[in-house]
Amino acid sequence: MNIQERALELHKEWQGKIEVCSRVPVRDRMDLSLAYTPGVAEPCKEIHKDPKLVDVYTRRWNMVAVVSDGSAVLGLGNIGARAAMPVMEGKSLLFKTFAGVDAFPICIDSQDVDEIVRTVQLLTPTFGGVNLEDIAAPRCFEIERRLKETTDIPIFHDDQHGTAVVVLSGIINACKITKRELNDLQVVINGAGAAGIATAKLLLSVGVKDVILCDSRGIVCSKRQDLNQEKREMLKISNKEDRCGTLADAMVGANCFIGLSVKDAVTQDMVRSMGKDPIIFAMANPVPEIYPDKAREAGAAVVGTGRSDFPNQVNNVLGFPGIFRGALDVKASDINEPMKIAAAHALADLVGDRLSPDFVMPEAFDLRVAPAVAAAVAKAAMESGVAREPKDPEWVKKHTEELIGVAK
Amino acid sequence: MNIQERALELHKEWQGKIEVCSRVPVRDRMDLSLAYTPGVAEPCKEIHKDPKLVDVYTRRWNMVAVVSDGSAVLGLGNIGARAAMPVMEGKSLLFKTFAGVDAFPICIDSQDVDEIVRTVQLLTPTFGGVNLEDIAAPRCFEIERRLKETTDIPIFHDDQHGTAVVVLSGIINACKITKRELNDLQVVINGAGAAGIATAKLLLSVGVKDVILCDSRGIVCSKRQDLNQEKREMLKISNKEDRCGTLADAMVGANCFIGLSVKDAVTQDMVRSMGKDPIIFAMANPVPEIYPDKAREAGAAVVGTGRSDFPNQVNNVLGFPGIFRGALDVKASDINEPMKIAAAHALADLVGDRLSPDFVMPEAFDLRVAPAVAAAVAKAAMESGVAREPKDPEWVKKHTEELIGVAK
Repeated sequence: MNIQERALELHKEWQGKIEVCSRVPVRDRMDLSLAYTPGVAEPCKEIHKDPKLVDVYTRRWNMVAVVSDGSAVLGLGNIGARAAMPVMEGKSLLFKTFAGVDAFPICIDSQDVDEIVRTVQLLTPTFGGVNLEDIAAPRCFEIERRLKETTDIPIFHDDQHGTAVVVLSGIINACKITKRELNDLQVVINGAGAAGIATAKLLLSVGVKDVILCDSRGIVCSKRQDLNQEKREMLKISNKEDRCGTLADAMVGANCFIGLSVKDAVTQDMVRSMGKDPIIFAMANPVPEIYPDKAREAGAAVVGTGRSDFPNQVNNVLGFPGIFRGALDVKASDINEPMKIAAAHALADLVGDRLSPDFVMPEAFDLRVAPAVAAAVAKAAMESGVAREPKDPEWVKKHTEELIGVAK
Repeated sequence: MNIQERALELHKEWQGKIEVCSRVPVRDRMDLSLAYTPGVAEPCKEIHKDPKLVDVYTRRWNMVAVVSDGSAVLGLGNIGARAAMPVMEGKSLLFKTFAGVDAFPICIDSQDVDEIVRTVQLLTPTFGGVNLEDIAAPRCFEIERRLKETTDIPIFHDDQHGTAVVVLSGIINACKITKRELNDLQVVINGAGAAGIATAKLLLSVGVKDVILCDSRGIVCSKRQDLNQEKREMLKISNKEDRCGTLADAMVGANCFIGLSVKDAVTQDMVRSMGKDPIIFAMANPVPEIYPDKAREAGAAVVGTGRSDFPNQVNNVLGFPGIFRGALDVKASDINEPMKIAAAHALADLVGDRLSPDFVMPEAFDLRVAPAVAAAVAKAAMESGVAREPKDPEWVKKHTEELIGVAK
């Protein structure tokens, strides 16, 4: 039986990958009086007086909605909200396993931006954070922007920012190997959807001087009449020389390629056309833009992919659990650029002495990851003024370790 | 420390009464490949082909939303969605403890009927059932009606139907004690909100010939100009002689009083004005319409209240867990009258040989309750044609026992 068949069978056996558990015993009338009526009226009254206390007397402080409309699920496309449920349950499972975050799948049976935004707004009494997932671009940008503007809880579209953070961590370490500074990089990103645009923005915010975005029609440049609003916006901050042409044209002389689009998009000749010791992240799944052995043969200094069977796997599970853990622990009102950058540096730092061309990012099952990311994110939240409840980053680290059961 | 103070302190310690738990271990890359990418694509594809399979490959088959707008919470009134959270978490806790149902609080930050209805509709990819809770009348009636019409999952407003079912079970046994048939009853209900109207309807549907509803202004009758639509509708099926007047007027000659409104509404003289051996359910909380000793002294044959420190406690926890368990186990598309009536009879039957004026209903912690109710509800669902996946009621009973850990 292959992985596909086994996964299908197991999903049937599991009868769901998550469940709702009781944290409180209800064995007798006294228990009932305390957890339910009449005792429960007291926390209700307190929250009515001060709505912030909902994060003290209920689970909201640790509860994240994993929200999808099912419009861009994995590589499967627009399969709808019901069919997205196994992924959102899986995501919830990873939140709990890797960072002790209670996450709950909210699959919304509409692909209308207004309806999605309104639904999430109306659910904020229940949730202390929102992870947007597998929502198609460009709709995902508007949904995220409007939710950030109108709510006071962390809103984070993982396909955008989770990917960007993990890629940045790999690039930080790849620069150490190739003896570059971030501002020496000339980056070409193939894929101008959610992940591509977010990665471009994050790289520019850490000092990368220029990024060229490409989509299926080639370089995103001012001569193009077919650009959506997000791509047009990107023209203001990327592709400074306004180069036009194909992906192959863009790659000539560049020293960093980031693939977030389609398999086999890059040839060995295209790698050879790049500058010296190029960095290649070829993350198309399951078949990368170019296989690592081919890229290395053509001169690449560091190669990462999205696959667990090659070195340097760009895996979002390195990011979102610790990022939310840190944000929740200090009651951050946002997950902002400094917090994402801090997460990327924390990941890069964990590699330590093991740094090599085949080891620029920690492994998914390195249990130091979420505690380190959470502490760095919490610190950045405090320093950037979005933390409503400051905490010692060491406390956040310990708290994360306790929640995932690795505290000494 | 009294119960109120202790409950508040405990709610702080608990940091939430429920949490989201993993049902699947994620210890290594193989686990990740099966529960998440790439394996998770398989159940997604299957559900995309046949949306019903969401109940096979995810937890939806057992997942109930506990939905409130916070407009009528306990006796606290309109305290809003955030302040309602401790109650909805408590309800979720009871669902799990008493019947193994995964229930999740959905507190909606709007009191607009259209928004509440739309939000719940949009969440049906995630939830296999909906328990409406603490939503003010008459809004609750429209919300329930519209959701029943537009969704194909069980929609159940517990304040209405849960209360009605448990009251009916007590009345069935009180009739045995007073040697009456249900159609011998002349019932006066004080309180024409959600619970009062639903109880009236359920009693009429099991053969009670007449019911008189009273509200704070007296008997609901045709001369009244201040009636809302639901009360006007009730005039068509209740108060057949169209009597007018006060609650005291209504009670003269009646043989059953059901109080779902305000404390101290009933005097001993009013009980004495009733027919022989009257049945009194005085469920105002925490102070009943009349205390049991006073009612007995004035001639009542059977007295029930909402309190756990008197005999015959009408406690909704006797109803909703088993009702949803039975409905979910046979994938019922509705919770209809036959299912509610079956639940009431199952509860009444559990009393068995212990039947006495002080014991007309099972106790809340009788662990036979949910399995018996679930089996009866499942059977009624199948017989009334709303079960999409028939099951042997004995299987449902066993399943419930297994889920709550009392299987032999």
